[in-house]
Amino acid sequence: MLSKTPAKGMRDFLPKEFALRQQILATIQKTYESFGFTRIETPAVENIALLTSKQGGDNEKLIFKILKRGEKLENASEDSLCDLGLRYDLTVPLARFYANNAGQLPAVFKSIQMDNVWRADRPQRGRYRQFVQCDIDIIGEQSNLAEVELISATMQTLVNLGFKDVTVRISDRRLLNALVARCGFAEEQKQAVFIALDKLDKIGVTGVMQEVEAIAPGKAVEFINLIVRITSDPNPFSRCVEELGEYLPQEVKQNLEEILYITNKTVEGGRVVFDVTLVRGMGYYTGTIYEVSADGIASSIAGGGRYDKMIGRITGNDVPACGFSIGFERIALLMSERGVQPLLKCGTAVLVDKNLDPSQTVDVLNACRHARQSGNVTMLKKAKNFSFQVKQLREQGYDVIYDYKNGAFNKID
Amino acid sequence: MLSKTPAKGMRDFLPKEFALRQQILATIQKTYESFGFTRIETPAVENIALLTSKQGGDNEKLIFKILKRGEKLENASEDSLCDLGLRYDLTVPLARFYANNAGQLPAVFKSIQMDNVWRADRPQRGRYRQFVQCDIDIIGEQSNLAEVELISATMQTLVNLGFKDVTVRISDRRLLNALVARCGFAEEQKQAVFIALDKLDKIGVTGVMQEVEAIAPGKAVEFINLIVRITSDPNPFSRCVEELGEYLPQEVKQNLEEILYITNKTVEGGRVVFDVTLVRGMGYYTGTIYEVSADGIASSIAGGGRYDKMIGRITGNDVPACGFSIGFERIALLMSERGVQPLLKCGTAVLVDKNLDPSQTVDVLNACRHARQSGNVTMLKKAKNFSFQVKQLREQGYDVIYDYKNGAFNKID
Repeated sequence: MLSKTPAKGMRDFLPKEFALRQQILATIQKTYESFGFTRIETPAVENIALLTSKQGGDNEKLIFKILKRGEKLENASEDSLCDLGLRYDLTVPLARFYANNAGQLPAVFKSIQMDNVWRADRPQRGRYRQFVQCDIDIIGEQSNLAEVELISATMQTLVNLGFKDVTVRISDRRLLNALVARCGFAEEQKQAVFIALDKLDKIGVTGVMQEVEAIAPGKAVEFINLIVRITSDPNPFSRCVEELGEYLPQEVKQNLEEILYITNKTVEGGRVVFDVTLVRGMGYYTGTIYEVSADGIASSIAGGGRYDKMIGRITGNDVPACGFSIGFERIALLMSERGVQPLLKCGTAVLVDKNLDPSQTVDVLNACRHARQSGNVTMLKKAKNFSFQVKQLREQGYDVIYDYKNGAFNKID
Repeated sequence: MLSKTPAKGMRDFLPKEFALRQQILATIQKTYESFGFTRIETPAVENIALLTSKQGGDNEKLIFKILKRGEKLENASEDSLCDLGLRYDLTVPLARFYANNAGQLPAVFKSIQMDNVWRADRPQRGRYRQFVQCDIDIIGEQSNLAEVELISATMQTLVNLGFKDVTVRISDRRLLNALVARCGFAEEQKQAVFIALDKLDKIGVTGVMQEVEAIAPGKAVEFINLIVRITSDPNPFSRCVEELGEYLPQEVKQNLEEILYITNKTVEGGRVVFDVTLVRGMGYYTGTIYEVSADGIASSIAGGGRYDKMIGRITGNDVPACGFSIGFERIALLMSERGVQPLLKCGTAVLVDKNLDPSQTVDVLNACRHARQSGNVTMLKKAKNFSFQVKQLREQGYDVIYDYKNGAFNKID
């Protein structure tokens, strides 16, 4: 007998689950479109060379690889066996898409992608091996108008989905570099220090201190004290600027300052704050980075940043690029836990006898066809347990139900 | 340098292409919903055992197989290396879905699936390695109300998409069995005869005759004469019934008769006809089979049939099941060749100087935010080639464009 469950870590979606997901996606797309973004699509499958080009960080370890067809298996290595893989995010494929289609796209291209990605992660609550990401990206805009628009559009989307107190935390990879330079870490210790700092919300200040001490003995206390001085200041950004002094390039300071000023004067339903502890995992970020929380939920529901060097790896010419990705699965889970229900379309059900003759069937079907001009109509044979069938239909959203008997439609109350 | 083209046989969709595809899909879903079908989703990836269970015919040879993770490659066979694969159709996954979720589904379940499938076919014009199928299925309905509803809903969908003269050709696998029995073919010759007959539109009557002669010497002439007598009769169904005599079970005759009578009295925009030459490739059909053509286009744009034995292969208990699949890619290609354009949403674009200061940026963004209540609004920096930028924006659907200068919004005509 064949197994009836989905593949490990993957899910079936029943009609009501699907309807809610589709409605959330429609709200996201509509809001993004209202900011001038347009939706595109790339294939689920990409050449393995693109997916393993050292841009995805740890996610590259989680790629589902597709067996090359007609390959001899003897003496083969995994690399020689696979020429394709399932995408693990939407950003790397977008860079390829842009490189491939730039001639047909506007100079500043504002894209929406809402699609599945696949990661062979260990399945756990709320984490799946196939999941939807909703990304917006602006390609070709060097100025912080890109960050401002991405932040505004994402905050508006979350507000439209019913989230309140949306907080965007922002920093810059170049500011993090200034921070570790200021504390005297060596270049080769940088990545490890970032990884330790990134765990702050999980392992706390003492946890981070221990990890940093293990990386660079004697430097942890100064580093942690600096972080604490900045985060505990009523104005962490000014304090950070002051503490970093000449280590922080003027351009990075001004850029963050402008984004904080502009967004906080123009967005509704939330705020944008500087967060010196923000790191973000992906290796491809080159400038600003940001993450979103809402309604006091500690974990992040969206995140992104600037990646000005990615397209150049495909075309040879760098193109400024900046993106924001909504964690759709987390949002769908939160909304479903809050009891958000899909809007069911009203409908009419016509129940007929099991042995209805062909000419009566014709009459009922033609009546259904006319009624369909004003709503959904389904025709079904009566089940043995008639009252259970009626109850099920009501739950499905059929608010008008007829019992067709002896040529007459009898409405069931 | 990394390659910028999509993987072989796969496609990128630009904003206008995506918009048209999404609009077609919305029309399909809406029409199907009006008949009481509801949309569900299964994962793109299934366990390889399900995909290679000998139900998909030749399509099983075209499966993209996914490498098992952490497997030793020495002495491995392809089967031991792969535990997952990309689905090649939506019917086999639906049977698994139904087996997995039957307890939460109504007794008669009317599903919509609109999703990608993958086949490692040789790429050619209009044939891709990732493509969308749009399926409706009715599970749990034994009577021909299932066929009648599937045919009505599919014809209405094609009419709503702008197709005219929709013709559904219908037959039954059991009638084909009667046909070969009547001509005296042996049981083991049956499949080969069906395959030959299936090529009639490609190789013609003499081609089929040659192939059948090679399968069963001496029987081809009688077979072909029978086919021609039926197809050339003004009433091919009556003629077929008459020719097959006792070989055709009464139940099969009555079933087709009823479907032809009921559908032709209740559908608009087309007709349903009997076609003795209809075979259809998939191995899993057990009863009625049907295909659709429209507007005089010879090739089929939709097809389906009854597969009452598939769910039993997973659960041990057969459940009546019947489906209809629209060839979405062919339809999208036809519509695009006919010049059907996506409905672009009107929009407003505000173009600002490259060096707009933060406080003016705030003013413009707040103006955009208010204007967004009545439509899409994008804010962009002025490009060097301003008139080209304006032209591009008009093509994208921005019908109102402002040049923001010295604190004033100047409308560009």
